[in-house]
Amino acid sequence: MKYFEDLAIGDTDEIGAFTFSVENIKRFAMLYDPQPFHVDEAAAAASHFGGLVASGWQVAAVWMKLLVAHQEVEIIRARQLGKPVVKLGPSPGFRNMVWARPVRAGDTLRYSVEVTGKKESTSRPEWGIVSMLSSALNQHGEQAFRFEGTVFWERRG
Amino acid sequence: MKYFEDLAIGDTDEIGAFTFSVENIKRFAMLYDPQPFHVDEAAAAASHFGGLVASGWQVAAVWMKLLVAHQEVEIIRARQLGKPVVKLGPSPGFRNMVWARPVRAGDTLRYSVEVTGKKESTSRPEWGIVSMLSSALNQHGEQAFRFEGTVFWERRG
Repeated sequence: MKYFEDLAIGDTDEIGAFTFSVENIKRFAMLYDPQPFHVDEAAAAASHFGGLVASGWQVAAVWMKLLVAHQEVEIIRARQLGKPVVKLGPSPGFRNMVWARPVRAGDTLRYSVEVTGKKESTSRPEWGIVSMLSSALNQHGEQAFRFEGTVFWERRG
Repeated sequence: MKYFEDLAIGDTDEIGAFTFSVENIKRFAMLYDPQPFHVDEAAAAASHFGGLVASGWQVAAVWMKLLVAHQEVEIIRARQLGKPVVKLGPSPGFRNMVWARPVRAGDTLRYSVEVTGKKESTSRPEWGIVSMLSSALNQHGEQAFRFEGTVFWERRG
């Protein structure tokens, strides 16, 4: 795991992949986004999407799911190697979230996070502030989703 | 329901309210954001939040849930009154999503959408482009969540 000081602009981490299925698309959408093209295959086929597509909010939530799992693996590895566990702080929010392509049942998205900027925090000297571009490519290599975010990142003590 | 031409900057629509519960916070988080302070009350009490809080992605997904339900009611009302059903087009994405305050079990958020800008689409003359500020206030009147978005909006034919 890297401390703030070890990060370089351009560093990219693949955080994982997720396959969207008819089942998980409908399950999410029934609870949070019950538009016909997310919950009903016949209605979806007749829509401008031409078939069932995932809610954009599911595509975003999967990013969080994968990041949490990725961090857990990183923490376990650090402990096994006797290396320090580096903390990430909260994120105040995100910018410029774009759903660039529909995500269909059967699509697999690979999510990655790239460091695009870093600066020291003036108010909280134990943290650095890291800007990141998160994105997801589908199995055809096309970008389906992206957003920019900022997180607090632990500094070497 | 209003056509693009009928919208005025500053128009605000309350789209609904949602109460976050221990059950729905955990249910969402187990699937999409299993950080300890979203899934485990004891761990949450020991965290910097001091108690269970909702995933920011659940707070965002609830916005979509309420907007879909609000649109359904608007469509039913328009049909009952013999008024036209105005279509909203897809949104290419959102900007500046901010989780301004923790959302705790028991909190009720009221979501609203305000028109902040409008312009005609040059590429698609049947649509206007409407900028909106979406936000959610908790039961103490404090803003917990906001983001800016752009949607295509049907023009008077």
